[in-house]
Amino acid sequence: MDVFDRLKAAAPDAWASYVEHDFVRRMGEGSLPEEAFRTYLVQDYLFLIQFARAYALAVYKGRSLADMRAAQAGLSAILDVEMGLHVRLCARWGLSPDDLEAATEETGTVAYTRFVLDAGAAGDLLDLHVALAPCVIGYAEIGRRLAEEIGPGLATHPYREWIGEYAGEAYQELATSARRHLGDLAARAMTESRFPDLARLFAQASRLEADFWQMALDPRGPR
Amino acid sequence: MDVFDRLKAAAPDAWASYVEHDFVRRMGEGSLPEEAFRTYLVQDYLFLIQFARAYALAVYKGRSLADMRAAQAGLSAILDVEMGLHVRLCARWGLSPDDLEAATEETGTVAYTRFVLDAGAAGDLLDLHVALAPCVIGYAEIGRRLAEEIGPGLATHPYREWIGEYAGEAYQELATSARRHLGDLAARAMTESRFPDLARLFAQASRLEADFWQMALDPRGPR
Amino acid sequence: MDVFDRLKAAAPDAWASYVEHDFVRRMGEGSLPEEAFRTYLVQDYLFLIQFARAYALAVYKGRSLADMRAAQAGLSAILDVEMGLHVRLCARWGLSPDDLEAATEETGTVAYTRFVLDAGAAGDLLDLHVALAPCVIGYAEIGRRLAEEIGPGLATHPYREWIGEYAGEAYQELATSARRHLGDLAARAMTESRFPDLARLFAQASRLEADFWQMALDPRGPR
Amino acid sequence: MDVFDRLKAAAPDAWASYVEHDFVRRMGEGSLPEEAFRTYLVQDYLFLIQFARAYALAVYKGRSLADMRAAQAGLSAILDVEMGLHVRLCARWGLSPDDLEAATEETGTVAYTRFVLDAGAAGDLLDLHVALAPCVIGYAEIGRRLAEEIGPGLATHPYREWIGEYAGEAYQELATSARRHLGDLAARAMTESRFPDLARLFAQASRLEADFWQMALDPRGPR
Repeated sequence: MDVFDRLKAAAPDAWASYVEHDFVRRMGEGSLPEEAFRTYLVQDYLFLIQFARAYALAVYKGRSLADMRAAQAGLSAILDVEMGLHVRLCARWGLSPDDLEAATEETGTVAYTRFVLDAGAAGDLLDLHVALAPCVIGYAEIGRRLAEEIGPGLATHPYREWIGEYAGEAYQELATSARRHLGDLAARAMTESRFPDLARLFAQASRLEADFWQMALDPRGPR
Repeated sequence: MDVFDRLKAAAPDAWASYVEHDFVRRMGEGSLPEEAFRTYLVQDYLFLIQFARAYALAVYKGRSLADMRAAQAGLSAILDVEMGLHVRLCARWGLSPDDLEAATEETGTVAYTRFVLDAGAAGDLLDLHVALAPCVIGYAEIGRRLAEEIGPGLATHPYREWIGEYAGEAYQELATSARRHLGDLAARAMTESRFPDLARLFAQASRLEADFWQMALDPRGPR
Repeated sequence: MDVFDRLKAAAPDAWASYVEHDFVRRMGEGSLPEEAFRTYLVQDYLFLIQFARAYALAVYKGRSLADMRAAQAGLSAILDVEMGLHVRLCARWGLSPDDLEAATEETGTVAYTRFVLDAGAAGDLLDLHVALAPCVIGYAEIGRRLAEEIGPGLATHPYREWIGEYAGEAYQELATSARRHLGDLAARAMTESRFPDLARLFAQASRLEADFWQMALDPRGPR
Repeated sequence: MDVFDRLKAAAPDAWASYVEHDFVRRMGEGSLPEEAFRTYLVQDYLFLIQFARAYALAVYKGRSLADMRAAQAGLSAILDVEMGLHVRLCARWGLSPDDLEAATEETGTVAYTRFVLDAGAAGDLLDLHVALAPCVIGYAEIGRRLAEEIGPGLATHPYREWIGEYAGEAYQELATSARRHLGDLAARAMTESRFPDLARLFAQASRLEADFWQMALDPRGPR
């Protein structure tokens, strides 16, 4: 059992509330309302910007040049690749770059992103990466599970692009590498007496991810 | 019109959504369910801990010894005075210190507190205090308005302690001094071209405060 | 062997270069030029301001209310007690508060203080306290050793106030408690694979402390 | 007079102590001892690592995606281009990558780099870039002046590579763009009442740069 599995095992309810959330289930069934998915896409774009800041924080906090280069590769992947992919995906769902720029962060987006950034600013790299893990590693788990459940029907599934991206080999490898990195960080700065704090951090991050899905299902009021 | 008034004028809807929130209105009318108030009290206790961290951040970021001493007085007031008052208020509403310690931060609590801390970590002291202003200065405005509306009936009002504290002279003076401090910070580092960013920050903080009230009204599910 | 002893044992040369520095030896012998001591006093005043910021950072980074209160006690001790003592000591050496305010930080002061603050900002509380240890705990060791060497002659020794303060019971207890705290932090977040990084941090901090003494001995040029 | 010129004009002695330092003069005359240049090269390598962290901090502190992308380009330029150039330059002076890895930061290197990082962590982007300006923009000024003084003799000058790099078009453009960026930041967050603080920051950074040169001239003791 690696650290990621231990963290999940220590927070089974929080983890289930996230990876088995209604949003995920309905996306898999293809019954997720398009409007909810669009809301998600817009907030996820705003999420990515803060996510890039988290990787910049990891570069700043790097203890070695190797650490810094690895985090910088992650930062560059977000700013130079993922955001472009996301903008294109949004375009296919009728959302223009202007729509994205004009959007305001919802409370659920603020909560998870600033929680991660604060955990990283106040703690060490291990805290930062534990707080990021539900997102970085969890999306790979969700994507793969949905792809397996859907099977050959994926080619015509309404959410094939999202599922295909996270179930795809490139993302699965990225998650495997993030998982190994988490193990390396834990081998350095995790003792058994620290584990409960990390488990609480992971549980809270998982609940905030669940609320991020929920936010997309909730009816929008004017802000 | 001082800076605080300008910020409110630039974000009238967000400000109204906060200071005229249903939670506030029903507290004034005495019709707020006790359970909602208890939920609020517990989350506000967790809020205070993060609030203390924000003042510690202000000490760390102080440019002069005078700055540092002022922020340290605020930090000390929270840790040494306000938290004790809060614990006693909670006790009168049937909430023990153990209840407070055992509580988990709700998404709305995480959102506003970490938003403030991140605004302060990423920005300067002006950003930090603009993000804090809806809370520090806004509570004085809400308390005074409710006290005026209620008038002599306050003595037997179910929420007389909360309203009395924030309408009271001590808190009103604290808010006046916070407002003057905000003006001083703005005189130093605010230009007209920066104002729109600060107004956006203030609007977002106000919306997050509104969601903090809302959180107490929403039915609790198991977490 | 507690963590502090292990850190010293891992960096014997750096530690000796600090605690057995010429400045210390000559202070003990009473042969330290008064001008060097005055230079030291002025820079140490500027050092204290940054030191207070380090404790504010520790409050901000606290993982629990107990952590935060402990760090806040340290912060308050510096701002409310130690700085006053220092100003009075300076006055007896002919240095007015205006002299202190007008002084510019020397490179050696900048180096150690910002090194500590950066270690704390980029790392965790253990990094911060390891970087502070040569100062907080080392001064107790230096003070006690000098007091023992001087013996009854301390009453008329030219540097009796400085030596007496750090050899005194109050400071010795503070250092003992800092040492215990360092042990607690290490029990939580130090593994053997992390130890070499901490030893390097401690060695560098010790060298910077040695250079802080040296700065006071070096002839001053105009700046 | 742009902001950079105003900052120089407000700190003429500190600026002159840096750009007209003996190290610079003797490099221009070709009389700088090779050993001093090697010491400088090693410390400058360690400096670059911290410099990269400063740009990562700027990404983290970015207020907009455009800000973040600009800072990320700077970070990437340091990690992916400049460090490689530096390693090659070091190789031509007989310094292997292992020599660089094994080196310890001198006090002067710690002082300037951590001063910049702390100014940026405690302040805003303007503080960070004012602290960086003596380095980023100052090197362009020094390089160009030396190239002009040396004239056609540069082709056979012992320090032609260093001078050529900083006098060259690519670096001159980079400095011009950094200067414009400083102006943009100042237009946003600098008022006249803030200027004296920025001038003090710039003066201190310039003095620390002067001490960085001096460090290379000072005789090395064993550490």
